[in-house]
Amino acid sequence: MALISPSRRLRRTPFSDGVEAAGVKAYTCYNHMLLPTVFRSVDEDYHHLKNAVQVWDVSVERQVELRGPDAGRLMQMLTPRDLRGMLPGMCYYVPMVDETGGMLNDPVALMLSDDRYWVSIADSDLLLWVKGLAYGLRLDVLAEEPDVSPLAVQGPKAEDLMARVFGDGVRDIRFFRYGYFDFQGQALVVARSGYSKQGGFEIYVEGSEIGMPLWNALFEAGRDLDVRAGCPNGIERVEGGLLSYGNDMTRENTPHECGLGRFCSTQTAIGCVGRDALLRVAKEGPVQQIRPLSIEGDIPPCDRAWPITAKGKRIGKVTSAAKSPDFNTNVAIGMVRITHWDPGTELRVETTDGPRPARVEENFWI
Amino acid sequence: MALISPSRRLRRTPFSDGVEAAGVKAYTCYNHMLLPTVFRSVDEDYHHLKNAVQVWDVSVERQVELRGPDAGRLMQMLTPRDLRGMLPGMCYYVPMVDETGGMLNDPVALMLSDDRYWVSIADSDLLLWVKGLAYGLRLDVLAEEPDVSPLAVQGPKAEDLMARVFGDGVRDIRFFRYGYFDFQGQALVVARSGYSKQGGFEIYVEGSEIGMPLWNALFEAGRDLDVRAGCPNGIERVEGGLLSYGNDMTRENTPHECGLGRFCSTQTAIGCVGRDALLRVAKEGPVQQIRPLSIEGDIPPCDRAWPITAKGKRIGKVTSAAKSPDFNTNVAIGMVRITHWDPGTELRVETTDGPRPARVEENFWI
Repeated sequence: MALISPSRRLRRTPFSDGVEAAGVKAYTCYNHMLLPTVFRSVDEDYHHLKNAVQVWDVSVERQVELRGPDAGRLMQMLTPRDLRGMLPGMCYYVPMVDETGGMLNDPVALMLSDDRYWVSIADSDLLLWVKGLAYGLRLDVLAEEPDVSPLAVQGPKAEDLMARVFGDGVRDIRFFRYGYFDFQGQALVVARSGYSKQGGFEIYVEGSEIGMPLWNALFEAGRDLDVRAGCPNGIERVEGGLLSYGNDMTRENTPHECGLGRFCSTQTAIGCVGRDALLRVAKEGPVQQIRPLSIEGDIPPCDRAWPITAKGKRIGKVTSAAKSPDFNTNVAIGMVRITHWDPGTELRVETTDGPRPARVEENFWI
Repeated sequence: MALISPSRRLRRTPFSDGVEAAGVKAYTCYNHMLLPTVFRSVDEDYHHLKNAVQVWDVSVERQVELRGPDAGRLMQMLTPRDLRGMLPGMCYYVPMVDETGGMLNDPVALMLSDDRYWVSIADSDLLLWVKGLAYGLRLDVLAEEPDVSPLAVQGPKAEDLMARVFGDGVRDIRFFRYGYFDFQGQALVVARSGYSKQGGFEIYVEGSEIGMPLWNALFEAGRDLDVRAGCPNGIERVEGGLLSYGNDMTRENTPHECGLGRFCSTQTAIGCVGRDALLRVAKEGPVQQIRPLSIEGDIPPCDRAWPITAKGKRIGKVTSAAKSPDFNTNVAIGMVRITHWDPGTELRVETTDGPRPARVEENFWI
């Protein structure tokens, strides 16, 4: 692996001092910001995540805040998911597409009030899309990136740790719901959500200055729970089938190709961008779709799309892959053509180290 | 320095195989793509750039292509620079702003024809802004990212090397002009431009498949010129006062604050976004502006904005800084308030290693 050069352009976060003190070994860049990827080792971090509790600096989940009389209308334009049932206190996973139905981002939206939303974004400058739409359509809405940095607490002991810092009330937060909880006199949005399948919370830390006090409070309270600094884990998230925008889906793909058709109610999401294209897709069905794949043999890091072939013909690509210690295979996410996507289909993956036998699986590994 | 984790999301380029073979040591991430930052060492790369010729993989300068009857109208909306004099064959540096005059990008635009432009972007997803505007305003224009990856040839011997590969015609290309030149039967856009002050060219490589053949042809032709793989150099660009979007300017700043007022003809750039705000700024003048600064003593890598103080009061920030071997000082770029921006003003810079004496310089170091 090469080094990552320091630059103000790769922004630090309110928790960077803590991340460095915890011995971060590697980063990626995400929304023009540093995202830790390795602390002890990807494998050791993986086992620890599944057994204890980790605190993750996911400040890179920047917020796009929509505020004003047209905020609700703009939110519904942004996604083919029907938002009519959304209320304050709810988080919605909302695929966002352009006019051709191509994925622009797959954020989680929080409704704060009738005229105020946070959109917690994946790795693309969604703010520019939102601002462009709002300007072009002369909507009465302000779109900005507020000083809000999510801190995730993930793992089987996450609830216990959170209860120690925020009180037992956090135990009552349901999945993809949020509440307000006090830290040092300030009410913070705390949601039951996160980019792992191990359970946990995301704290929307409003105001950089409370970042390190909160970080320290969590570590202090969790010493006997073996709390550690962690980060989204490249193995665990593929096992769980958690998609990554930019890896497993891009502007090339529709939500239906990404298996996100269940979040698209294009018929009733009145006014959403991409409606015409997605109605067509919904009617005909996609010709390729994301599938869980297992790959045999040793594999290199998946730093580019690997072609998938069958009888010498290209029928898809692997977009994420990792060796899974718990499942004793290489777990992978791939986009596979309709002709070859049935579970059990035997395929060949052209890795950068050569071809490997692969198989379409029935389910992800959770 | 920490490592950078491999991921498909940090896209490789058509030249990545060449970059790796040349022994790249470090990267940054730029427009969701890998940008090399160090080959031998930043210092060694610096001296070589100033004395010989380097080939740079600047694929990260992604293109936003505008095509269609409204392409010209949209281009003028995107920038406060008056584009009425622009003709095919010309490159224009075009600051782009939002409705409040905040910088969104500072790309170079190429006019390919009346209804087709390439916008060679800095590090933000300008495509999303462009698509949002086009959709909201129902413009007849297609906006896409084509398979075009710039390759820069920079340094005092750049012209000689380019002439060997593309013919002596390249010698006639004037600064910020481009022509079409043949490589293996394909006409490529070749511009006299680049992110250094050492002179050179940028080849807009259309079609990934000719990337490595061109890379190899340049290295083969330049063996006796000591051609090497290089990259934008963190010292040379600060010496030359070449601004970096995300480092020296952000959405917080107006073009006037960035010293780019000369590219804003807001009165005549009819229809440009941000007109109202920028007319106000142009009239009143900015209250802070980018200045060349020298800093004494040893300095750490500038991975965050360093506060600038005078008599204990905060009056600006340093956004880029590097130790300059040729000028025997630390060269820096900073945003300084009007009260303290006169050349010769003595200031204090609060680096992460402690305070350092600094001075406002008359000019950048070229």
